[in-house]
Amino acid sequence: MTAFQDLMTFQRDTEALGQIAGRLGWDQETMMPEGAARQRGEEMAAIEGVLHARRTDPKVGAWLAAAEAPDAAGARMLELIARAYGRNAAVPARLAAEIARVTSVAQGTWAEARARNEVGHFLPTLETVVALMREKGQALAAAGYGAGDPYDALLDDYEPEATADGIAAIFDRMRPRLVALRAAILGAAYQPAKLAGTFPQDGQLALARDLASAFGYDWNRGRLDLAVHPFSSGSGNDARITTRVVESDPFNCLYSTIHEVGHAAYELAVDPAYLFTPLGQGVSMGVHESQSRIYENQLGRSAAFTGWIYGRMRDRFGDFGIGSADAFYGSVNRVQSGFIRTEADEVHYNLHIMLRFALERDLFGGRLEVADLEEAWNARFLQDFGVAVDRPAHGLLQDVHWSVGLFGYFPTYSLGNIYAGCLHKALRRDVPDLDAALARGEARPATDWLGQKVQHFGGLYRPAEVIERACGAAPTEGPLLDYLEEKYRALYRL
Amino acid sequence: MTAFQDLMTFQRDTEALGQIAGRLGWDQETMMPEGAARQRGEEMAAIEGVLHARRTDPKVGAWLAAAEAPDAAGARMLELIARAYGRNAAVPARLAAEIARVTSVAQGTWAEARARNEVGHFLPTLETVVALMREKGQALAAAGYGAGDPYDALLDDYEPEATADGIAAIFDRMRPRLVALRAAILGAAYQPAKLAGTFPQDGQLALARDLASAFGYDWNRGRLDLAVHPFSSGSGNDARITTRVVESDPFNCLYSTIHEVGHAAYELAVDPAYLFTPLGQGVSMGVHESQSRIYENQLGRSAAFTGWIYGRMRDRFGDFGIGSADAFYGSVNRVQSGFIRTEADEVHYNLHIMLRFALERDLFGGRLEVADLEEAWNARFLQDFGVAVDRPAHGLLQDVHWSVGLFGYFPTYSLGNIYAGCLHKALRRDVPDLDAALARGEARPATDWLGQKVQHFGGLYRPAEVIERACGAAPTEGPLLDYLEEKYRALYRL
Repeated sequence: MTAFQDLMTFQRDTEALGQIAGRLGWDQETMMPEGAARQRGEEMAAIEGVLHARRTDPKVGAWLAAAEAPDAAGARMLELIARAYGRNAAVPARLAAEIARVTSVAQGTWAEARARNEVGHFLPTLETVVALMREKGQALAAAGYGAGDPYDALLDDYEPEATADGIAAIFDRMRPRLVALRAAILGAAYQPAKLAGTFPQDGQLALARDLASAFGYDWNRGRLDLAVHPFSSGSGNDARITTRVVESDPFNCLYSTIHEVGHAAYELAVDPAYLFTPLGQGVSMGVHESQSRIYENQLGRSAAFTGWIYGRMRDRFGDFGIGSADAFYGSVNRVQSGFIRTEADEVHYNLHIMLRFALERDLFGGRLEVADLEEAWNARFLQDFGVAVDRPAHGLLQDVHWSVGLFGYFPTYSLGNIYAGCLHKALRRDVPDLDAALARGEARPATDWLGQKVQHFGGLYRPAEVIERACGAAPTEGPLLDYLEEKYRALYRL
Repeated sequence: MTAFQDLMTFQRDTEALGQIAGRLGWDQETMMPEGAARQRGEEMAAIEGVLHARRTDPKVGAWLAAAEAPDAAGARMLELIARAYGRNAAVPARLAAEIARVTSVAQGTWAEARARNEVGHFLPTLETVVALMREKGQALAAAGYGAGDPYDALLDDYEPEATADGIAAIFDRMRPRLVALRAAILGAAYQPAKLAGTFPQDGQLALARDLASAFGYDWNRGRLDLAVHPFSSGSGNDARITTRVVESDPFNCLYSTIHEVGHAAYELAVDPAYLFTPLGQGVSMGVHESQSRIYENQLGRSAAFTGWIYGRMRDRFGDFGIGSADAFYGSVNRVQSGFIRTEADEVHYNLHIMLRFALERDLFGGRLEVADLEEAWNARFLQDFGVAVDRPAHGLLQDVHWSVGLFGYFPTYSLGNIYAGCLHKALRRDVPDLDAALARGEARPATDWLGQKVQHFGGLYRPAEVIERACGAAPTEGPLLDYLEEKYRALYRL
């Protein structure tokens, strides 16, 4: 056995154990009896401990030093293992343990603060989390990650090779066009009708299954269950999805399902040869989100596909007060001002992200302190959304991310939208008759294209590279903005 | 930290990882998409590898040598860890790997042979498995396990401190009384009616839930799902059960459920202080089975409790052709000749076990070879059951156990019945008005007694010791036989 083979044999078990940890997470959110929560915490800690020990095992360092890759895929595997190993080594064990300890409690404190609608209850904790994450970013930067920039070094965990400067440049170009589009829509004379009524859970779930099938979800390698917050979980041949049901708002269930099918489809389409290797999963949060978003928005919310859903909704629920497929398309894509990121429409969503990204950058660039964060949030929100935040739970306290140390994570949501815009443009070029299929409830021409152009490669190419290879051009915000402006100007008769 | 504390800290994670492996097994049988099977095999192998490495880690040996127990529970913990460590050390790694390799394939070969009804397809594989297990038994015996006897050394894995000689003496006393009781019942003039009709799945499952609740199953720390073969899984605060539904035979679902509630109740009642220690689970297969059997049979199939079930069945299914609670009691407890152990009634069940035990002992005592096994099986079956085996799938090929190397496992089923007999006698003595509660669908006076007398102690006492402490006398077959004879003579009007 060569060092490369030894390393890959070791890595294989590490990847398999990582899958197990993921499966436990799925169980916890879907199946686990409530009374098992504390016990599960210890079980998760035990397997995370095993994983951490393997990922930082000095044997890995020795193998990496000696290993020679047999081919390009092997070289990329070594690169990814070395990156993970190097990042782990760069963070002092004391700091890693302290972050784990603090964030495990901080999430609870955040939830309490949100429930009480009381920023002050959360701020001291957030101060500590930010201080620790600044220290982590500096430690990583000192080791050369993020080209020496602490925020970029954190971002690198979610979107490798992206930089805050690059993202800021894109966002600066996007923001005025989105703000203008938003204002035009909200001021438009024509406003589509809002869906009203009650849609029983069984019918919603049956329809969600139909939609997942329409998007080619492989039920032989997945399943759909209920969860409080929809998510997808697992790789290789076991990628499960979840959804939730609000009886007054079936779009919540249906579009969550399509979104998670996008994530799961990515995992299920990765080259089987990469199973249990560092290439065996989606390459970044941004590329992952591009798949979920193009499934959910550009395809799932298209006029062609909503026409098909409209028929299925009428089959399932009878007359629900929307008289035509056109009106239904309007109700699906209705733009509405709101405080909450996770409830935002396609036009508002990226404005929510830009706000968070700007504040994060300022926090890590020394231009903003935690004590001033709420004021900064509210000022920016008023500026972009034209509405004052009415309560902290609708503002600074709305997202869990910062409480658990996820800095550098938010921008990947918008990168996903931007990548989806690029992919959608290329897809329409390559599959010109796509709408005819979508109108029949067949998304396969699109999902096949995405499978071959993006999903199949798993972690083989870098994030921006996989998008560029699929589209023939480096990713930019242009296609997304063109798509949004064209779609919403037509819909709102602007 | 003392060596004892170091060892227990290490053990805690090992136990937690063991729980995770168990949860994966549950997922595999209940939730896992079919297409994930191969991948799951690798994931299971990865965590089993981690567990094996921990259980044989030389650090454990060093801690064991240096550890001093702070109290009796600590001493028992050390004893159990030392036993597991010593047994692992006694089996050469080459042999352990070979057994794992061969048995992982052998189960498939057995299933093929059973489907084809062809003993010859399985025998070469069984030859290999028996040879390997003989070698394992000899290696363990050479290290002093089973007091130097290879079969006892294997039995020790499932029912520590039991001996084949001791079990044989019990079985020799049981067999003539069971054979005579069986003959009398099958020749009786009165025969209870057999349940007929179709009982829809939803109603069966709803009733199964009611029965689990009647037996005090803690839904906050468990759940009920469907599986091909019912089982229970998990310890501490997460003990899940499964059942199956045959629409023509609701007793299958209902009594499988009560049986598994018995197993799960044991795990859920163990002293919480023992969680993630070697005392944190049921002490042996036999004692575990005593809980499932007393729940299922002595309590669940009692005249008092079946009277309550009868009312619930009529509420749920309307008139199903059994006109009285008495007749229903008869149909639940109907004795019928049959080839299959898992379908056997209380009278026949132990005869099935005695047959297997006798053959196993002869195989490991050098008095029987695999080539002659089918003939020996069929001869013994004819002798005890008065019927000739009509096909191998109803004889030698019916059970999976031997294909996966489970020798010494079968007798624990009957030990469970014997222990249940002893516990039931003591329970009736201590709770004289139990039938009044059972007739109201309340099993709690019985389950509380079992919880306090048996389940609470987990692995603290040795198997026979925990039964003796609960009953005030060492376990014997007498109470079980007295119970069976009394119950069935009355029922069959003998």
